[in-house]
Amino acid sequence: MATRSPATVRLVDEASAPARVAAVFQDIKTTKAIDFVPNFWRVLATQPDQLERVWSHLKALMHPEACGRPSRLDPLTREIIALAVSATNGCAYCVNSHTAAVRKLGLDVEALGEVLAIVSLFNSTNTLADGYQVEPDVLPPQE
Amino acid sequence: MATRSPATVRLVDEASAPARVAAVFQDIKTTKAIDFVPNFWRVLATQPDQLERVWSHLKALMHPEACGRPSRLDPLTREIIALAVSATNGCAYCVNSHTAAVRKLGLDVEALGEVLAIVSLFNSTNTLADGYQVEPDVLPPQE
Amino acid sequence: MATRSPATVRLVDEASAPARVAAVFQDIKTTKAIDFVPNFWRVLATQPDQLERVWSHLKALMHPEACGRPSRLDPLTREIIALAVSATNGCAYCVNSHTAAVRKLGLDVEALGEVLAIVSLFNSTNTLADGYQVEPDVLPPQE
Amino acid sequence: MATRSPATVRLVDEASAPARVAAVFQDIKTTKAIDFVPNFWRVLATQPDQLERVWSHLKALMHPEACGRPSRLDPLTREIIALAVSATNGCAYCVNSHTAAVRKLGLDVEALGEVLAIVSLFNSTNTLADGYQVEPDVLPPQE
Amino acid sequence: MATRSPATVRLVDEASAPARVAAVFQDIKTTKAIDFVPNFWRVLATQPDQLERVWSHLKALMHPEACGRPSRLDPLTREIIALAVSATNGCAYCVNSHTAAVRKLGLDVEALGEVLAIVSLFNSTNTLADGYQVEPDVLPPQE
Amino acid sequence: MATRSPATVRLVDEASAPARVAAVFQDIKTTKAIDFVPNFWRVLATQPDQLERVWSHLKALMHPEACGRPSRLDPLTREIIALAVSATNGCAYCVNSHTAAVRKLGLDVEALGEVLAIVSLFNSTNTLADGYQVEPDVLPPQE
Repeated sequence: MATRSPATVRLVDEASAPARVAAVFQDIKTTKAIDFVPNFWRVLATQPDQLERVWSHLKALMHPEACGRPSRLDPLTREIIALAVSATNGCAYCVNSHTAAVRKLGLDVEALGEVLAIVSLFNSTNTLADGYQVEPDVLPPQE
Repeated sequence: MATRSPATVRLVDEASAPARVAAVFQDIKTTKAIDFVPNFWRVLATQPDQLERVWSHLKALMHPEACGRPSRLDPLTREIIALAVSATNGCAYCVNSHTAAVRKLGLDVEALGEVLAIVSLFNSTNTLADGYQVEPDVLPPQE
Repeated sequence: MATRSPATVRLVDEASAPARVAAVFQDIKTTKAIDFVPNFWRVLATQPDQLERVWSHLKALMHPEACGRPSRLDPLTREIIALAVSATNGCAYCVNSHTAAVRKLGLDVEALGEVLAIVSLFNSTNTLADGYQVEPDVLPPQE
Repeated sequence: MATRSPATVRLVDEASAPARVAAVFQDIKTTKAIDFVPNFWRVLATQPDQLERVWSHLKALMHPEACGRPSRLDPLTREIIALAVSATNGCAYCVNSHTAAVRKLGLDVEALGEVLAIVSLFNSTNTLADGYQVEPDVLPPQE
Repeated sequence: MATRSPATVRLVDEASAPARVAAVFQDIKTTKAIDFVPNFWRVLATQPDQLERVWSHLKALMHPEACGRPSRLDPLTREIIALAVSATNGCAYCVNSHTAAVRKLGLDVEALGEVLAIVSLFNSTNTLADGYQVEPDVLPPQE
Repeated sequence: MATRSPATVRLVDEASAPARVAAVFQDIKTTKAIDFVPNFWRVLATQPDQLERVWSHLKALMHPEACGRPSRLDPLTREIIALAVSATNGCAYCVNSHTAAVRKLGLDVEALGEVLAIVSLFNSTNTLADGYQVEPDVLPPQE
């Protein structure tokens, strides 16, 4: 048995982060109410422009209340979407991270199972629709 | 400009479906409260075993109330998951079908935009996490 | 309703193909026992190096008998693999092409349904394994 | 070097499984003729409905003889499809599991190489067909 | 033969766009030096927040000179990355759009063939690496 | 925490490789100017036909100068394409390998961040284009 290799860049430490990066790190911890900076953000910090861009984008969509923006979706639904996408793509980091998030928002193991069952169902039906090249149904137009 | 080719098998017509297939077609229309059989099911009907298996699987997960089963997710959340998966996979039939479904359940064009924005955000962060090979955060264990 | 756009490059015509391309076109028709050059090869012919490379690669693997090479898989199994990959990727051209190939090799509509059912099943279980981040089972080593 | 994180839920032990789960576990071991319950099923057991649904679906398609159903495909071809899908999706658990299965069914290392070569060939041609947006060939219609 | 269905939302017309949307449309045309608004942006305009967010993100990365930012990559390399991703994902709109962009930047049909050959090669080797579960090489660490 | 499982086949050692395999191994080391044989090639060597086929294909496209062939792309652009594909597919081995290659060719951590930012941007816009089923723009035809 061998071990998994680490990230392809050296993670930026909170302690030694330049001011610009430290400000984003602090905002991430405050907005997400967590007491550490996840590895994802420590990796992006190797390119500070990217860190700022991705964080502001994610903050706007996933923490709209912190941005004073209205949202039509509740926080759990938003995290369920994140998990559905991550499971479909098979992204290990993302599945771990968003599973932790939905659990923290109250989804228990049984309900997590229901979510993943639905995600896997549609990966299956997508394959059938593509595998048969089914044409879209002709539906009445809508706005 | 050329035209899109049709499905790779001939769709089964409602009118001429054998009894076993007709029964599933009827259940689909009743359960989904629609007055036509979507092309997806007409294609699966070319192999009746498969039609029954996929429909009973989808009915159990997407129409649990019709099966007398409890669900932890509301119908709109379930369809949003279906759309998130279908957009991530780029399945044309499925995107059309699940967009129609979320619209019917009350999601307007603005809210659809919010859903797809979140879906696309996580396809983007998945790529970054995989592209840097970020290791999962070490979190406290949970049941 | 709008129409599908054509390929992003102009297809090379058999009639006006340069000698090097014409030779590959002829080999494709002979090896596959067909009387036209599929669009895929007419597109690749816009870069003759690529046409030769892809065709020789595909010929070696899919028509080993024409290359005097042994194969452990029969022609239908090889085409079934091609269809499984194409359905999983949702590649429209490829699904059409490999469905035609498996049909020509004797797979009827029912058996095609069985193949696609299995393909979709494993797209579903793949999602579950990734969605739960299941660790590989520890199995006894093998050569 | 860091280590791979474990599954996102605690695996259900055979010894302490509730009766409903234990019955499925036993059926898996009997049907597959193995003496342990693979991690995949131990994870699904966290939601017993899902365990039953996925197992009955997989049993019907992959062990049709145990269900008294006819199949048009032999067991090795079915497992080769599973491996082709899993390699295309890059699912680590699934590749490990289905490689073990095809090996057990007699595929040696050389033949495994032929299977994966064909799987990779079609991932390559799929990319070319999509990358050039090749239109499907116009073929004579078939039933 | 049937026709491709249109987008799932009604495209926003330049003529009737609200001021906020019209400003982005104008910036797109100016920055990209084109005289029409591509369908992609007309669709995103159904949710103006999203239009602004995606455009500012894309402008920053793909038109850094217009933002007064330095870039380490030339415009053609950036568009080649866009095409490589789009071909890998099989996104029809995106392949069409980025093929047009690389052509406009001077890539002829032969060189386009070289790009797509490399894209397809690595989709093939990715499948082999995942299909065999090859472990990363142990390399000397680097900053 | 558990460990990552090894490759599904035993890697071929340089020391004990048969002559045919050893010749390819030597060519890989010479052409790439490295002093070890990467795991990828040691795995493919379990099926020598495949090793030769994949290596000659990769050598022709990625080391054209060693084959006396002209190329329109410089070595760094070619490796950037490889990384873009690998990050999009989430292939762990490939991301590690091609990140090492672009670093060796001079891309520093900041520029790597720019590449991955662009790769992730287009995974995001691909999802939006597919998620809305945007139709290709009608453009003037080109050769």
